[in-house]
Amino acid sequence: MINDFPSDLVVRRPAAGDHARVLAVLDRWWGGLGGEAGSTERALLLPRLFFQHFNTTSYLAERPDGSLGAFLIGFLSQSDPEVAYIHFVGVDPALHGQGIATALYQGFFDQVRSHGRRHVHCVTSPGNTASQAFHRRLGFDILSGEQGTGDTPFQPDYDGPGIGRVVFALDLARRPSRRSR
Amino acid sequence: MINDFPSDLVVRRPAAGDHARVLAVLDRWWGGLGGEAGSTERALLLPRLFFQHFNTTSYLAERPDGSLGAFLIGFLSQSDPEVAYIHFVGVDPALHGQGIATALYQGFFDQVRSHGRRHVHCVTSPGNTASQAFHRRLGFDILSGEQGTGDTPFQPDYDGPGIGRVVFALDLARRPSRRSR
Repeated sequence: MINDFPSDLVVRRPAAGDHARVLAVLDRWWGGLGGEAGSTERALLLPRLFFQHFNTTSYLAERPDGSLGAFLIGFLSQSDPEVAYIHFVGVDPALHGQGIATALYQGFFDQVRSHGRRHVHCVTSPGNTASQAFHRRLGFDILSGEQGTGDTPFQPDYDGPGIGRVVFALDLARRPSRRSR
Repeated sequence: MINDFPSDLVVRRPAAGDHARVLAVLDRWWGGLGGEAGSTERALLLPRLFFQHFNTTSYLAERPDGSLGAFLIGFLSQSDPEVAYIHFVGVDPALHGQGIATALYQGFFDQVRSHGRRHVHCVTSPGNTASQAFHRRLGFDILSGEQGTGDTPFQPDYDGPGIGRVVFALDLARRPSRRSR
């Protein structure tokens, strides 16, 4: 499903039955970012529908013992035939630094490119500096916004009152495909 | 876009620029259901991505003066070619009883049927008895769950810890199409 996947994780499509397992690890993986409100926000951002209706462009990576190592939830834009969207990605902090998130993103890029998608969009919260650095390293551009407390511009109220987002876009045409590298 | 739409509302596709307007009316239209937590939940359930990537199967209904009267956010399941999903629907309470929600649902049914979709799925919260009655009247079946405090079975923790849902499914093959009535 994804070639050359790092570590001994086994990658497969998520199913509706995986929803509760993924939610259960989010707080630990996010280090409790945002406290109880952050926990509720993460659960509400990841309703079961993503595991039911968009699993054909999503990935779950498990250790040989079946425990969850990483996941990526993404979809093909229904409205814009040139765009694909990465909605939620998580990697067990114990597995950070092994290139797992990069491999999941690359797998998604390869798949959506085969569906004719040229642009990949995603957002992250203004406080998630690790995620921001990751997307910059992958070559994502930041769509303009106000300057935040850090050095990353974000768009205030992007997802609702008080829910600002750093907005990323990647042009796959400017990125070599796996095959041509 | 939708034939025989009741009242003088004008129906069109929503766009990303409508996101903030829709969120702004939700609390009033929902009568403040769930207090501040309910308000946050509704905003998080309706991130901007639905207005960006699924507007081709969604509807916005405006009064002649441009004010918002109703909306429906739905999509074609990417994973299951027989299923379409209605994610969020709202009607200004001042316009209740005119068949507006029914007309939006019927418009969605007609559209997704033309895409070969046979089943329409959606969920509502266990406390939203008006929504439950509406879906029963339209002919939706309730997928089994535990008996709640009312008479409607719901599935506890369906969308996360403490986030129970009444789960609805409609078989369009058992419902006459607009044309044949």
